[in-house]
Amino acid sequence: MLMGKLDQVKVVIVDIVKNDGSGRRDPNNAHPEGKVPFLVTDEGDTIRESAAIMMYLDEIFGHPFSIKPGDAGRGSFLSWMSYYCGVLEPAMVVHFAKLDHPILKSTFRTMAEVSEQIMSGLGDKPFLVGDKLTIADIIMASAFQWAPHLIPETPTVKAWIKRVEGAQDGAGLEAFETQAFSALKMQA
Amino acid sequence: MLMGKLDQVKVVIVDIVKNDGSGRRDPNNAHPEGKVPFLVTDEGDTIRESAAIMMYLDEIFGHPFSIKPGDAGRGSFLSWMSYYCGVLEPAMVVHFAKLDHPILKSTFRTMAEVSEQIMSGLGDKPFLVGDKLTIADIIMASAFQWAPHLIPETPTVKAWIKRVEGAQDGAGLEAFETQAFSALKMQA
Ligand SMILES: N[C@@H](CCC(=O)N[C@@H](CS)C(=O)NCC(=O)O)C(=O)O
Ligand SMILES: N[C@@H](CCC(=O)N[C@@H](CS)C(=O)NCC(=O)O)C(=O)O
Repeated sequence: MLMGKLDQVKVVIVDIVKNDGSGRRDPNNAHPEGKVPFLVTDEGDTIRESAAIMMYLDEIFGHPFSIKPGDAGRGSFLSWMSYYCGVLEPAMVVHFAKLDHPILKSTFRTMAEVSEQIMSGLGDKPFLVGDKLTIADIIMASAFQWAPHLIPETPTVKAWIKRVEGAQDGAGLEAFETQAFSALKMQA
Repeated sequence: MLMGKLDQVKVVIVDIVKNDGSGRRDPNNAHPEGKVPFLVTDEGDTIRESAAIMMYLDEIFGHPFSIKPGDAGRGSFLSWMSYYCGVLEPAMVVHFAKLDHPILKSTFRTMAEVSEQIMSGLGDKPFLVGDKLTIADIIMASAFQWAPHLIPETPTVKAWIKRVEGAQDGAGLEAFETQAFSALKMQA
Protein backbone atom coordinates (compact mmCIF):
# COMPACT_ATOMS: atom_id res chain seq x y z
CA MET A 1 0.00 0.00 0.00
CA LEU A 2 2.77 2.43 0.95
CA MET A 3 4.63 1.63 -2.29
CA GLY A 4 1.47 2.00 -4.36
CA LYS A 5 1.81 -1.58 -5.55
CA LEU A 6 -1.27 -3.18 -4.03
CA ASP A 7 -2.60 -3.91 -7.52
CA GLN A 8 0.46 -6.09 -8.22
CA VAL A 9 -0.01 -8.37 -5.22
CA LYS A 10 -2.99 -10.69 -4.81
CA VAL A 11 -4.10 -10.36 -1.19
CA VAL A 12 -5.91 -13.40 0.23
CA ILE A 13 -7.83 -12.65 3.43
CA VAL A 14 -7.74 -15.62 5.78
CA ASP A 15 -8.83 -16.47 9.30
CA ILE A 16 -6.30 -17.61 11.94
CA VAL A 17 -6.45 -19.25 15.35
CA LYS A 18 -6.02 -16.44 17.89
CA ASN A 19 -4.28 -16.65 21.26
CA ASP A 20 -7.65 -16.96 23.03
CA GLY A 21 -8.46 -20.01 20.88
CA SER A 22 -11.07 -18.26 18.75
CA GLY A 23 -10.87 -18.28 14.95
CA ARG A 24 -9.85 -21.27 12.86
CA ARG A 25 -7.11 -22.60 10.66
CA ASP A 26 -8.22 -21.37 7.29
CA PRO A 27 -8.15 -23.86 4.39
CA ASN A 28 -7.45 -20.90 2.06
CA ASN A 29 -4.18 -20.19 3.87
CA ALA A 30 -1.10 -21.58 2.08
CA HIS A 31 1.14 -21.13 5.14
CA PRO A 32 2.30 -24.61 6.31
CA GLU A 33 1.29 -23.83 9.90
CA GLY A 34 -1.77 -21.70 9.18
CA LYS A 35 -0.08 -18.47 10.19
CA VAL A 36 -0.05 -15.00 8.66
CA PRO A 37 1.59 -13.34 6.84
CA PHE A 38 2.73 -15.59 4.01
CA LEU A 39 3.84 -14.70 0.50
CA VAL A 40 3.94 -16.89 -2.60
CA THR A 41 6.12 -15.31 -5.28
CA ASP A 42 5.45 -15.39 -9.03
CA GLU A 43 8.07 -18.14 -9.36
CA GLY A 44 6.37 -20.20 -6.63
CA ASP A 45 8.83 -19.48 -3.81
CA THR A 46 7.14 -19.34 -0.43
CA ILE A 47 8.13 -16.73 2.14
CA ARG A 48 7.20 -16.72 5.82
CA GLU A 49 8.05 -14.15 8.51
CA SER A 50 7.07 -10.49 8.17
CA ALA A 51 10.70 -9.33 8.02
CA ALA A 52 11.48 -11.56 5.01
CA ILE A 53 8.24 -10.69 3.21
CA MET A 54 8.80 -6.97 3.66
CA MET A 55 12.41 -7.22 2.44
CA TYR A 56 11.36 -9.24 -0.59
CA LEU A 57 8.57 -6.87 -1.65
CA ASP A 58 10.75 -3.82 -1.08
CA GLU A 59 13.53 -5.38 -3.20
CA ILE A 60 11.42 -6.38 -6.16
CA PHE A 61 9.88 -2.91 -6.26
CA GLY A 62 13.27 -1.17 -6.38
CA HIS A 63 14.19 -0.68 -2.69
CA PRO A 64 11.97 2.37 -1.99
CA PHE A 65 11.93 1.66 1.76
CA SER A 66 15.29 0.10 2.49
CA ILE A 67 19.01 0.62 2.08
CA LYS A 68 20.37 -1.25 -0.96
CA PRO A 69 23.28 -3.69 -0.58
CA GLY A 70 26.47 -1.67 -0.84
CA ASP A 71 24.90 1.63 0.28
CA ALA A 72 25.79 3.39 3.55
CA GLY A 73 23.56 2.17 6.36
CA ARG A 74 22.92 -1.28 4.84
CA GLY A 75 24.50 -2.91 7.92
CA SER A 76 22.22 -1.08 10.37
CA PHE A 77 19.24 -1.83 8.18
CA LEU A 78 19.92 -5.59 8.19
CA SER A 79 20.61 -5.46 11.92
CA TRP A 80 17.21 -3.94 12.72
CA MET A 81 15.34 -6.36 10.45
CA SER A 82 16.90 -9.33 12.29
CA TYR A 83 16.55 -7.64 15.66
CA TYR A 84 12.80 -7.42 15.10
CA CYS A 85 12.28 -11.15 14.62
CA GLY A 86 15.18 -12.35 16.76
CA VAL A 87 14.72 -10.11 19.80
CA LEU A 88 11.79 -7.69 19.85
CA GLU A 89 9.13 -10.25 18.92
CA PRO A 90 10.34 -12.97 21.33
CA ALA A 91 10.81 -10.42 24.15
CA MET A 92 7.27 -9.18 23.58
CA VAL A 93 5.81 -12.69 23.49
CA VAL A 94 7.60 -13.56 26.75
CA HIS A 95 6.23 -10.35 28.24
CA PHE A 96 2.67 -11.27 27.21
CA ALA A 97 3.07 -14.80 28.51
CA LYS A 98 4.10 -13.20 31.84
CA LEU A 99 7.08 -15.53 32.01
CA ASP A 100 10.13 -14.74 34.08
CA HIS A 101 12.62 -17.46 33.20
CA PRO A 102 16.42 -16.99 33.42
CA ILE A 103 17.10 -18.63 30.03
CA LEU A 104 14.47 -16.53 28.22
CA LYS A 105 15.74 -13.39 29.95
CA SER A 106 19.40 -14.01 29.20
CA THR A 107 18.65 -14.86 25.57
CA PHE A 108 16.20 -12.14 24.59
CA ARG A 109 16.61 -9.70 27.51
CA THR A 110 13.38 -7.76 28.15
CA MET A 111 11.25 -4.95 26.73
CA ALA A 112 13.32 -2.51 28.84
CA GLU A 113 16.46 -3.35 26.84
CA VAL A 114 14.42 -3.14 23.64
CA SER A 115 13.44 0.49 24.43
CA GLU A 116 17.04 1.33 25.29
CA GLN A 117 18.18 -0.12 21.98
CA ILE A 118 15.63 1.88 20.01
CA MET A 119 16.54 5.05 21.90
CA SER A 120 20.28 4.69 21.41
CA GLY A 121 19.78 3.43 17.86
CA LEU A 122 17.78 6.54 16.98
CA GLY A 123 20.19 9.04 18.55
CA ASP A 124 19.00 12.29 17.02
CA LYS A 125 18.09 10.79 13.67
CA PRO A 126 14.41 10.88 12.65
CA PHE A 127 14.43 7.20 11.65
CA LEU A 128 16.38 4.12 12.73
CA VAL A 129 18.73 4.09 9.77
CA GLY A 130 18.92 7.85 9.15
CA ASP A 131 16.76 10.48 7.44
CA LYS A 132 14.79 7.99 5.39
CA LEU A 133 11.83 5.90 6.54
CA THR A 134 12.60 2.23 5.96
CA ILE A 135 10.77 -1.03 6.55
CA ALA A 136 13.00 -1.37 9.63
CA ASP A 137 11.04 1.51 11.19
CA ILE A 138 7.73 0.09 9.99
CA ILE A 139 8.32 -3.41 11.37
CA MET A 140 9.84 -2.19 14.65
CA ALA A 141 7.09 0.38 15.28
CA SER A 142 4.35 -2.11 14.28
CA ALA A 143 4.92 -4.00 17.53
CA PHE A 144 4.02 -0.91 19.54
CA GLN A 145 1.08 -0.01 17.33
CA TRP A 146 -0.24 -3.49 18.08
CA ALA A 147 0.53 -3.18 21.83
CA PRO A 148 0.35 0.55 22.62
CA HIS A 149 0.55 -0.06 26.37
CA LEU A 150 4.14 -1.22 25.83
CA ILE A 151 5.22 2.08 24.26
CA PRO A 152 8.09 3.24 26.47
CA GLU A 153 7.79 6.53 28.34
CA THR A 154 10.79 7.87 26.41
CA PRO A 155 10.03 11.05 24.41
CA THR A 156 12.50 10.07 21.65
CA VAL A 157 10.83 6.69 21.14
CA LYS A 158 7.30 8.09 21.39
CA ALA A 159 8.08 10.78 18.82
CA TRP A 160 9.63 8.18 16.49
CA ILE A 161 6.52 5.96 16.65
CA LYS A 162 4.36 9.00 15.81
CA ARG A 163 6.65 9.82 12.89
CA VAL A 164 6.47 6.29 11.52
CA GLU A 165 2.69 6.28 11.88
CA GLY A 166 2.47 9.69 10.25
CA ALA A 167 4.41 8.46 7.22
CA GLN A 168 1.84 5.74 6.57
CA ASP A 169 -1.71 6.03 5.26
CA GLY A 170 -3.49 5.17 8.51
CA ALA A 171 -6.97 5.82 7.15
CA GLY A 172 -6.25 3.73 4.04
CA LEU A 173 -4.95 0.86 6.16
CA GLU A 174 -7.98 1.00 8.41
CA ALA A 175 -10.40 1.02 5.49
CA PHE A 176 -8.56 -1.95 3.98
CA GLU A 177 -8.78 -3.89 7.24
CA THR A 178 -12.44 -3.12 7.78
CA GLN A 179 -13.20 -4.41 4.31
CA ALA A 180 -11.04 -7.49 4.90
CA PHE A 181 -12.79 -8.33 8.17
CA SER A 182 -16.23 -8.06 6.60
CA ALA A 183 -15.12 -10.25 3.67
CA LEU A 184 -13.96 -12.82 6.21
CA LYS A 185 -17.27 -12.72 8.08
CA MET A 186 -19.20 -13.30 4.89
CA GLN A 187 -17.08 -16.39 4.14
CA ALA A 188 -17.64 -17.90 7.61
CA MET B 1 36.77 -18.32 6.77
CA LEU B 2 34.64 -20.10 4.14
CA MET B 3 34.90 -17.08 1.84
CA GLY B 4 38.66 -16.83 2.38
CA LYS B 5 38.26 -13.30 3.72
CA LEU B 6 39.38 -13.76 7.31
CA ASP B 7 42.28 -11.37 6.68
CA GLN B 8 39.81 -8.60 5.84
CA VAL B 9 37.88 -8.81 9.12
CA LYS B 10 39.42 -8.02 12.49
CA VAL B 11 38.23 -10.74 14.87
CA VAL B 12 38.09 -9.72 18.54
CA ILE B 13 37.87 -12.69 20.90
CA VAL B 14 35.72 -11.86 23.94
CA ASP B 15 34.32 -13.62 26.95
CA ILE B 16 30.55 -13.79 27.57
CA VAL B 17 28.27 -14.67 30.49
CA LYS B 18 27.10 -18.24 29.88
CA ASN B 19 23.72 -19.74 30.79
CA ASP B 20 25.25 -21.37 33.88
CA GLY B 21 26.41 -17.95 35.08
CA SER B 22 30.10 -18.59 34.38
CA GLY B 23 32.16 -16.19 32.26
CA ARG B 24 31.88 -12.42 32.38
CA ARG B 25 30.73 -9.42 30.41
CA ASP B 26 33.87 -8.55 28.52
CA PRO B 27 34.92 -4.88 28.46
CA ASN B 28 36.44 -5.53 25.00
CA ASN B 29 33.02 -6.42 23.62
CA ALA B 30 31.38 -3.55 21.70
CA HIS B 31 27.93 -5.23 21.74
CA PRO B 32 25.54 -3.04 23.80
CA GLU B 33 24.39 -6.05 25.83
CA GLY B 34 27.69 -7.95 25.96
CA LYS B 35 26.54 -10.62 23.51
CA VAL B 36 28.24 -12.30 20.57
CA PRO B 37 28.41 -12.06 17.62
CA PHE B 38 28.66 -8.35 16.82
CA LEU B 39 30.07 -6.64 13.76
CA VAL B 40 31.28 -3.06 13.38
CA THR B 41 31.54 -2.10 9.72
CA ASP B 42 34.25 0.11 8.18
CA GLU B 43 31.78 3.00 8.15
CA GLY B 44 31.00 2.49 11.86
CA ASP B 45 27.61 0.79 11.46
CA THR B 46 26.96 -1.78 14.17
CA ILE B 47 25.29 -5.10 13.35
CA ARG B 48 23.86 -7.57 15.84
CA GLU B 49 22.23 -10.96 15.20
CA SER B 50 24.04 -13.75 13.37
CA ALA B 51 21.60 -13.68 10.46
CA ALA B 52 22.22 -9.98 9.75
CA ILE B 53 26.00 -10.29 10.17
CA MET B 54 26.17 -13.25 7.80
CA MET B 55 24.03 -11.48 5.19
CA TYR B 56 26.14 -8.34 5.42
CA LEU B 57 29.48 -10.14 5.06
CA ASP B 58 28.18 -12.27 2.20
CA GLU B 59 26.89 -9.15 0.41
CA ILE B 60 30.04 -7.07 0.69
CA PHE B 61 32.10 -10.00 -0.59
CA GLY B 62 29.95 -10.44 -3.70
CA HIS B 63 27.18 -12.85 -2.58
CA PRO B 64 29.20 -16.12 -2.77
CA PHE B 65 26.87 -17.88 -0.33
CA SER B 66 23.47 -16.36 -0.95
CA ILE B 67 20.95 -15.63 -3.66
CA LYS B 68 21.24 -12.05 -4.92
CA PRO B 69 18.19 -9.75 -4.95
CA GLY B 70 16.34 -10.37 -8.19
CA ASP B 71 17.69 -13.91 -8.68
CA ALA B 72 15.48 -17.04 -8.54
CA GLY B 73 15.29 -18.36 -4.99
CA ARG B 74 15.85 -14.97 -3.31
CA GLY B 75 12.45 -15.26 -1.61
CA SER B 76 13.20 -18.66 -0.09
CA PHE B 77 16.62 -17.46 0.96
CA LEU B 78 15.21 -14.46 2.85
CA SER B 79 12.52 -16.68 4.36
CA TRP B 80 15.05 -19.12 5.85
CA MET B 81 17.26 -16.34 7.21
CA SER B 82 14.29 -14.85 9.09
CA TYR B 83 12.97 -18.27 10.06
CA TYR B 84 16.25 -18.97 11.82
CA CYS B 85 16.07 -15.98 14.16
CA GLY B 86 12.29 -15.70 14.33
CA VAL B 87 11.38 -19.35 14.84
CA LEU B 88 14.19 -21.89 15.11
CA GLU B 89 16.20 -20.01 17.73
CA PRO B 90 13.20 -19.15 19.97
CA ALA B 91 11.78 -22.70 19.64
CA MET B 92 15.16 -24.12 20.64
CA VAL B 93 15.52 -21.74 23.61
CA VAL B 94 12.02 -22.65 24.81
CA HIS B 95 12.96 -26.31 24.44
CA PHE B 96 16.11 -25.81 26.55
CA ALA B 97 14.22 -23.85 29.17
CA LYS B 98 11.82 -26.85 29.35
CA LEU B 99 8.87 -24.49 29.11
CA ASP B 100 5.48 -25.63 27.94
CA HIS B 101 3.43 -22.46 27.68
CA PRO B 102 0.46 -22.07 25.30
CA ILE B 103 1.54 -18.61 24.09
CA LEU B 104 5.12 -19.70 23.38
CA LYS B 105 3.85 -22.82 21.64
CA SER B 106 1.32 -21.06 19.47
CA THR B 107 3.83 -18.36 18.50
CA PHE B 108 6.93 -20.40 17.76
CA ARG B 109 5.47 -23.92 17.57
CA THR B 110 8.06 -26.54 18.62
CA MET B 111 11.20 -28.30 17.42
CA ALA B 112 8.94 -30.94 15.82
CA GLU B 113 7.48 -28.36 13.43
CA VAL B 114 10.99 -27.04 12.80
CA SER B 115 12.14 -30.49 11.58
CA GLU B 116 9.04 -30.81 9.41
CA GLN B 117 9.75 -27.41 7.87
CA ILE B 118 13.34 -28.33 7.10
CA MET B 119 12.27 -31.66 5.62
CA SER B 120 9.58 -30.22 3.39
CA GLY B 121 11.75 -27.21 2.57
CA LEU B 122 14.53 -29.50 1.36
CA GLY B 123 12.34 -31.78 -0.73
CA ASP B 124 14.92 -33.56 -2.83
CA LYS B 125 17.23 -30.62 -3.17
CA PRO B 126 20.71 -30.91 -1.60
CA PHE B 127 20.42 -27.53 0.11
CA LEU B 128 17.56 -25.39 1.42
CA VAL B 129 17.46 -23.01 -1.53
CA GLY B 130 18.57 -25.43 -4.25
CA ASP B 131 21.85 -26.88 -5.51
CA LYS B 132 24.00 -24.22 -3.93
CA LEU B 133 25.14 -24.04 -0.30
CA THR B 134 24.02 -20.73 1.18
CA ILE B 135 24.32 -19.05 4.56
CA ALA B 136 20.70 -20.15 5.10
CA ASP B 137 22.01 -23.74 5.31
CA ILE B 138 24.93 -22.70 7.48
CA ILE B 139 22.85 -20.76 10.01
CA MET B 140 20.02 -23.34 10.12
CA ALA B 141 22.39 -26.31 10.51
CA SER B 142 24.52 -24.46 13.10
CA ALA B 143 21.75 -24.88 15.64
CA PHE B 144 21.98 -28.66 15.34
CA GLN B 145 25.77 -28.67 15.35
CA TRP B 146 25.54 -26.82 18.66
CA ALA B 147 22.82 -29.15 20.01
CA PRO B 148 23.37 -32.51 18.25
CA HIS B 149 20.86 -34.28 20.49
CA LEU B 150 18.13 -32.23 18.81
CA ILE B 151 18.97 -33.52 15.33
CA PRO B 152 15.72 -35.07 14.13
CA GLU B 153 15.61 -38.77 13.26
CA THR B 154 14.74 -37.89 9.67
CA PRO B 155 17.24 -39.26 7.12
CA THR B 156 16.72 -36.24 4.80
CA VAL B 157 17.52 -33.79 7.56
CA LYS B 158 20.45 -35.81 8.91
CA ALA B 159 21.98 -36.09 5.44
CA TRP B 160 21.53 -32.35 4.89
CA ILE B 161 23.32 -31.50 8.15
CA LYS B 162 26.21 -33.78 7.11
CA ARG B 163 26.33 -32.08 3.70
CA VAL B 164 26.45 -28.61 5.25
CA GLU B 165 29.17 -29.72 7.66
CA GLY B 166 31.11 -31.34 4.84
CA ALA B 167 31.08 -28.12 2.84
CA GLN B 168 32.81 -26.27 5.67
CA ASP B 169 36.41 -26.49 6.85
CA GLY B 170 35.70 -28.26 10.16
CA ALA B 171 39.34 -28.73 11.09
CA GLY B 172 40.12 -25.09 10.29
CA LEU B 173 37.20 -23.90 12.41
CA GLU B 174 38.25 -26.11 15.29
CA ALA B 175 41.86 -24.89 15.14
CA PHE B 176 40.62 -21.30 15.07
CA GLU B 177 38.41 -21.88 18.12
CA THR B 178 41.13 -23.64 20.10
CA GLN B 179 43.45 -20.72 19.48
CA ALA B 180 40.71 -18.25 20.40
CA PHE B 181 39.95 -20.03 23.68
CA SER B 182 43.60 -20.08 24.71
CA ALA B 183 43.95 -16.37 23.83
CA LEU B 184 40.96 -15.72 26.08
CA LYS B 185 42.44 -17.71 28.94
CA MET B 186 45.67 -15.76 28.74
CA GLN B 187 43.75 -12.47 28.98
CA ALA B 188 41.81 -13.57 32.07
N1 LIG C 1 7.23 -14.10 13.43
C1 LIG C 1 6.08 -14.26 12.58
C2 LIG C 1 4.82 -14.31 13.39
C3 LIG C 1 3.71 -14.99 12.67
C4 LIG C 1 2.52 -15.19 13.59
O1 LIG C 1 2.65 -15.87 14.62
N2 LIG C 1 1.34 -14.61 13.23
C5 LIG C 1 0.16 -14.73 14.04
C6 LIG C 1 -0.74 -13.52 13.85
S1 LIG C 1 0.09 -12.02 14.29
C7 LIG C 1 -0.62 -15.95 13.55
O2 LIG C 1 -0.69 -16.20 12.36
N3 LIG C 1 -1.21 -16.72 14.48
C8 LIG C 1 -2.00 -17.87 14.15
C9 LIG C 1 -1.29 -19.17 14.48
O3 LIG C 1 -0.18 -19.12 15.08
O4 LIG C 1 -1.85 -20.23 14.17
C10 LIG C 1 6.04 -13.14 11.56
O5 LIG C 1 6.56 -12.05 11.85
O6 LIG C 1 5.54 -13.33 10.46
N1 LIG D 1 20.01 -14.19 18.29
C1 LIG D 1 21.36 -13.81 18.61
C2 LIG D 1 21.86 -14.57 19.81
C3 LIG D 1 22.99 -13.87 20.49
C4 LIG D 1 23.33 -14.56 21.80
O1 LIG D 1 22.46 -14.65 22.69
N2 LIG D 1 24.58 -15.05 21.94
C5 LIG D 1 25.00 -15.73 23.15
C6 LIG D 1 26.09 -16.75 22.84
S1 LIG D 1 25.53 -17.96 21.67
C7 LIG D 1 25.61 -14.70 24.10
O2 LIG D 1 26.30 -13.80 23.65
N3 LIG D 1 25.34 -14.82 25.40
C8 LIG D 1 25.87 -13.91 26.39
C9 LIG D 1 24.81 -12.98 26.94
O3 LIG D 1 23.61 -13.11 26.58
O4 LIG D 1 25.18 -12.11 27.76
C10 LIG D 1 22.25 -14.07 17.40
O5 LIG D 1 21.93 -14.95 16.59
O6 LIG D 1 23.24 -13.36 17.22
